[in-house]
Amino acid sequence: MNNFDFCSPTYFAFGKDTEKRVGELTKKFNGSKVLLHYGQGSVIKNGLLDIVRESLRQENIEFVELGGVLPNPRADLVYEGIELCKKEKVDFIIGLGGGSAIDSAKAISVGSLYDGDFWDFYEMKAIPQKAIPVATILTLAATGSEGSNSSVISNIKLGKKYGLNSELIRPVFSILNPEYTYSLPAYQTACGIVDMLSHIMERYFTNTQDVGLTDRLCEAVMQTLIANGKVAMQDPNNYEARANLMWSGTMAHNNILGVGREQDWSSHAMEHELSALYDVAHGAGLAVVFPAFMKFTMPKHIMRYAQLANRVFHIEMDFENPENTARAGIEAFVDFFKSLNMPTTFEELGAKEEDIPTLAANARIKGGGDQLGFFEPLNRKDIEAVYQLMLEKNKNNW
Amino acid sequence: MNNFDFCSPTYFAFGKDTEKRVGELTKKFNGSKVLLHYGQGSVIKNGLLDIVRESLRQENIEFVELGGVLPNPRADLVYEGIELCKKEKVDFIIGLGGGSAIDSAKAISVGSLYDGDFWDFYEMKAIPQKAIPVATILTLAATGSEGSNSSVISNIKLGKKYGLNSELIRPVFSILNPEYTYSLPAYQTACGIVDMLSHIMERYFTNTQDVGLTDRLCEAVMQTLIANGKVAMQDPNNYEARANLMWSGTMAHNNILGVGREQDWSSHAMEHELSALYDVAHGAGLAVVFPAFMKFTMPKHIMRYAQLANRVFHIEMDFENPENTARAGIEAFVDFFKSLNMPTTFEELGAKEEDIPTLAANARIKGGGDQLGFFEPLNRKDIEAVYQLMLEKNKNNW
Repeated sequence: MNNFDFCSPTYFAFGKDTEKRVGELTKKFNGSKVLLHYGQGSVIKNGLLDIVRESLRQENIEFVELGGVLPNPRADLVYEGIELCKKEKVDFIIGLGGGSAIDSAKAISVGSLYDGDFWDFYEMKAIPQKAIPVATILTLAATGSEGSNSSVISNIKLGKKYGLNSELIRPVFSILNPEYTYSLPAYQTACGIVDMLSHIMERYFTNTQDVGLTDRLCEAVMQTLIANGKVAMQDPNNYEARANLMWSGTMAHNNILGVGREQDWSSHAMEHELSALYDVAHGAGLAVVFPAFMKFTMPKHIMRYAQLANRVFHIEMDFENPENTARAGIEAFVDFFKSLNMPTTFEELGAKEEDIPTLAANARIKGGGDQLGFFEPLNRKDIEAVYQLMLEKNKNNW
Repeated sequence: MNNFDFCSPTYFAFGKDTEKRVGELTKKFNGSKVLLHYGQGSVIKNGLLDIVRESLRQENIEFVELGGVLPNPRADLVYEGIELCKKEKVDFIIGLGGGSAIDSAKAISVGSLYDGDFWDFYEMKAIPQKAIPVATILTLAATGSEGSNSSVISNIKLGKKYGLNSELIRPVFSILNPEYTYSLPAYQTACGIVDMLSHIMERYFTNTQDVGLTDRLCEAVMQTLIANGKVAMQDPNNYEARANLMWSGTMAHNNILGVGREQDWSSHAMEHELSALYDVAHGAGLAVVFPAFMKFTMPKHIMRYAQLANRVFHIEMDFENPENTARAGIEAFVDFFKSLNMPTTFEELGAKEEDIPTLAANARIKGGGDQLGFFEPLNRKDIEAVYQLMLEKNKNNW
């Protein structure tokens, strides 16, 4: 186990009717002039926004509003939000919705107290020194942004999609009511499940030795996601399945599962290129990337994959030939993604073989140099080989 | 799953040499005049105290010291600490050691900023409104006090042992270097393992439905404790085993495993009476109480015990007669306690059959009324029956 620091100070209020506590919690965390920041109308349609307004009014908390956040949230709206916060002297920001609304709220929070361009932080040209406190009301189980210190913003003008990590943007409180995830389209529910699983797998695939505790914790949450994911897809209004999925999403990415171990994150980097080039949903892209990544790395890491197969999918260990167990585990993962109606090949995603050299050339972890990941460090040729494994014609070539 | 609030804001620094960061972290959390509070000398012998002094001096942080904390920490020393803090205008308290030093530090922290008697808080006659920030350097994996909001103090004069829960006493930072647990006597290591397992079982034994995620998380940490407990008993200087145990102890009691579920805590209440009457170590008492509690409650909760047996001890499910699986799990628990050289009967603990009526009459959860626990609510007669099952002659009568 490696040395680590861990701190997850966010105050979570979880369960039915917790959205009605937003006024109480905002007051507790000293918000007096609030920006409500949200997306394209689902929080209006499902009534959440009205409940939030009412709760704030009951506590005599003033607020202004900015809607219109798009999936893959844009810098444009962040600039607009920053201007609004400065003009209205906002001292507290609440992001309502999924990861996009929350990430956009986080960007506004650091940008509003900075004299320069907020994009400096995402380009790593500057480090944020202060921020307006951010809180969240989550309506989608996926990104884990409700409990994380990160934000990802797309700058269309510059053709860049960059992330920021800072303790200043970790939410001071997050409200999670699983009922608000009932009405999600099945496709979004599925993308969320893949995203949450991926956050765990980026941590699970490690060479750090003697991380028995975090291995088991990762496996616990993966099993939960798979079991409850199946239920939620069949029965979208199943509270218990939605609740287990939602809290799993927070666990998957506040790093409680990743402490003390080297993490990989090469699959996320490869997926980001697919999202950038074809504008596909992050979860759908990950459902294509991860199986290929697993197939490529498995031969050198047979025992780790056998452990995954045995403990997460309960596939019996083949002691004579552990590779059979490892392979069966990867196949079970692909089958699970298919059962969610997720794409698992390049073609299903609308990606093109001829773009592979470009994708491979661009796939980088910010500040990570030429090599991608740590579990099995990938050079340019390796990355191309992983993308090749995503093609329909190659999917069994492993 | 029940609604819940969860917040665990403590900053953890985990691993080798982290104790050298105490100056840096104290500064980060604005400590300028520190009380170092510790036990009876192990932190002097193992050199920890000197390292801490040096680290504080390097950051020009002043400090005073108060040693002498006993196991089952006493109110007497708390009063002494409060006087010292007032006189020296201490603004930060660091508890060095195990749960006793930390719990004593927490009591001093709330008492120092209160005009009345700190014991009021433990009697629930008053609620703390402010406290001096507390930090910890942990040298024993057991109580979880390094990440919890609780403190237990014994008031010998009044013959009472009471606990306080308050967010004000949750440590602002905790330093955990597993190397400091190498030199523990085997008996203390074993008591710690039982204590950590017990914190999980009090949460695991619940009637709340659909808590799949927290069930799996509980099972993950229990498996880790059992596997690494065995290694640490054989090989006390095994860093990896000590590290997995130590972080498990924090997980076991910061409530990440217990959110959204009704918890039991009747075994702790029954053990407290044993500790009070016979001055036995808390972990040793729990090793006697838990098997009896399990035997008594199993017949009405066969499937929960079968799940525990199957998932934690990997005992094959007997689908024809699940009770066989449930029984085998309880037997595996008892065998594990025995392998740690823990007592598992009344006689081994030095407890006496004739005291059972007194023990049962006194066993209460503060504010819990006449009934003990929730998993299987115990009345006076039930509690006596549980104590009876701890007797050598009755241990197989279930």
